[in-house]
Amino acid sequence: MTFAFRILGTDGAARAGALRLPHGAVETPAFMPVGTHGTVRTLSPQDLAAARVQMILANTYHLHVRPGEDVVAALGGLHRFMAWDRPILTDSGGFQVFSLEGYRRVDDDGVEFRSPVDGSRRRLTPERAVDVQWALGGDVAMAFDHVVPGDATHEAAADALGRTTRWLERAARHHRDMVANRPHHQALWPVVQGAGYLDLRRRALDEVLELGDWSGIAVGGLAVGESKTVTLGVLEALEPAMPRSIPRYLMGVGFPEDLLAAVARGMDLFDCVAPTRNGRNGSAYTPDGPINIRNTAHRRDAAPLDDTCDCEACRTYSRGYLRHLFMADELLGLRLLSLHNVRFLTRLLSEARQHIRAGAFAPWHREWIDRYTARGLA
Amino acid sequence: MTFAFRILGTDGAARAGALRLPHGAVETPAFMPVGTHGTVRTLSPQDLAAARVQMILANTYHLHVRPGEDVVAALGGLHRFMAWDRPILTDSGGFQVFSLEGYRRVDDDGVEFRSPVDGSRRRLTPERAVDVQWALGGDVAMAFDHVVPGDATHEAAADALGRTTRWLERAARHHRDMVANRPHHQALWPVVQGAGYLDLRRRALDEVLELGDWSGIAVGGLAVGESKTVTLGVLEALEPAMPRSIPRYLMGVGFPEDLLAAVARGMDLFDCVAPTRNGRNGSAYTPDGPINIRNTAHRRDAAPLDDTCDCEACRTYSRGYLRHLFMADELLGLRLLSLHNVRFLTRLLSEARQHIRAGAFAPWHREWIDRYTARGLA
Repeated sequence: MTFAFRILGTDGAARAGALRLPHGAVETPAFMPVGTHGTVRTLSPQDLAAARVQMILANTYHLHVRPGEDVVAALGGLHRFMAWDRPILTDSGGFQVFSLEGYRRVDDDGVEFRSPVDGSRRRLTPERAVDVQWALGGDVAMAFDHVVPGDATHEAAADALGRTTRWLERAARHHRDMVANRPHHQALWPVVQGAGYLDLRRRALDEVLELGDWSGIAVGGLAVGESKTVTLGVLEALEPAMPRSIPRYLMGVGFPEDLLAAVARGMDLFDCVAPTRNGRNGSAYTPDGPINIRNTAHRRDAAPLDDTCDCEACRTYSRGYLRHLFMADELLGLRLLSLHNVRFLTRLLSEARQHIRAGAFAPWHREWIDRYTARGLA
Repeated sequence: MTFAFRILGTDGAARAGALRLPHGAVETPAFMPVGTHGTVRTLSPQDLAAARVQMILANTYHLHVRPGEDVVAALGGLHRFMAWDRPILTDSGGFQVFSLEGYRRVDDDGVEFRSPVDGSRRRLTPERAVDVQWALGGDVAMAFDHVVPGDATHEAAADALGRTTRWLERAARHHRDMVANRPHHQALWPVVQGAGYLDLRRRALDEVLELGDWSGIAVGGLAVGESKTVTLGVLEALEPAMPRSIPRYLMGVGFPEDLLAAVARGMDLFDCVAPTRNGRNGSAYTPDGPINIRNTAHRRDAAPLDDTCDCEACRTYSRGYLRHLFMADELLGLRLLSLHNVRFLTRLLSEARQHIRAGAFAPWHREWIDRYTARGLA
């Protein structure tokens, strides 16, 4: 089986597993850095491999508007284009179309929007999103969904959910036609929407599960501004009803503490721009919470960012030097903090996997959070 | 001997040599990338090592105003600070003080200027420049000089030259006192000034050679806007009178074609921001001349930047992908083109060394330039 998932251990709702994809295996829980334009900002594929990244996410919307999926396909597909030979998941473009600024018009067929690159009118539909992702050639494609803001009304969320389900049916049909010609090339995963409304979330999950025998399932529309109580409430409501035998991907999460909270609630895969974006802003994760490298306290600090870390930044440089790079606007600083933050998350989830398999996740989780939050989070 | 230079071969005026410095050996002719703020912009020390860089230059002026030589010294000196354990040359700060915008007042004692970082008044003198560079801890320090623009009058150039010679005497005395306490730590090299006036250049060289038994000598104040005829004329006038037994460093050069022209005229060491600055602007050297990676012609081009090159950019990526990185303002693109351009120059000088030692420099030089300029240079 090109697409397979095996549970290697559980502890409460938390799961440690192994996901097989066309471009290799992924141990879960796993974090996917975001390569918006077919590159994880500031990092090379060698950097990602050194940070033990197993799988990345690329943004269909961004690659569609520039350079265009035709260019990516002509240059050998996304793996070859960006020289990353391990698993890639592409999002559907739905989140970007609905969250980015600018003109858009939604109808039941799809969404019309204006390209921010050249101003041209573009259209994404469930079928087009499958086609674009097929051309990009990631291991996993996502079904095109209608994403609503975290504070959407029940009515708006229900309306978007109805549309998402109808679109899923069309995407699945189109994807089956593609796969008939080239089997095992790319999986299509559905997205469970429904904002913070538990009744809509349960309905969404039921409808998704009725529509196919999926090799993975995503929970979307969270971490978009709602409170953490709502986020975790949705995960707790969905978890018992989600199939145990396939990986569960929580989109857009996130921060170290949020990753562990979601792992505790049975989620397996994650993506977020936070480690690289925060890194470029000078914020570095440490076991004692994030630090801002620009802080004057680090001016003559000979210690590494994080003395438990094995990344290039921590093995090579003092906080004093890293601070200097940021004060002098040197690009190497952006890269080193991005690299460290990504490695911090891959190490965190590697430890989580070990503790789940040892049946010791809960106490480790508690201790880890106690230390991470002892100084108070920014 | 910690500081030693050995000629390994000559061909006409061109020389191939081996320079020994406290942090290692340098085969000459050699190009030093510029690490303005204690980092070669976008490149890590690992990148530099991969590009076979033997020695880098760091800017005393920039490191003095930020983070301050006291911070660099507290963090172990420049080598440890920036994690580069091979030779470093620091310039004297003279060029920056005289060429950067803003307030400055010159008198015979030194130069007063305003820090662009915090607006504070600072003073550089021949002694202070020695002290600052001693604190930074590079292998080679440069004597503080009065640099004039390329179009300076004979009178202005003669005045600055007189001052440069008096400053050199003071710098040399101060440096001897430092070395008495910690021998073989750092060499001090003088700079031959005199703008484009051959009489002043000859006088400068005479005065420099009278003042000490130097382990290296620099030619400064060229490549600052004068015509190439003037630059090469100065080198041709100086070459027969320069000691053969020490390395000759031509400051601020350069472009591939200029490096070879200077090697042909007996110069051994070079520095310039061009490969990294041009790289960040999307300009990449190739054996057929520079190309602009943003050009639409590269949109679907699966070829590497330079199919003769062994750098990470050329071994890994298509021109189409590199163009995409630049069009999407992705930082990885800046790094990859900088890396390629630096590697291009180290390969160029490595080939020059081989051809000098084989007594075949002149015909190789001619062929190389013919190909490089066949399409016309930008």
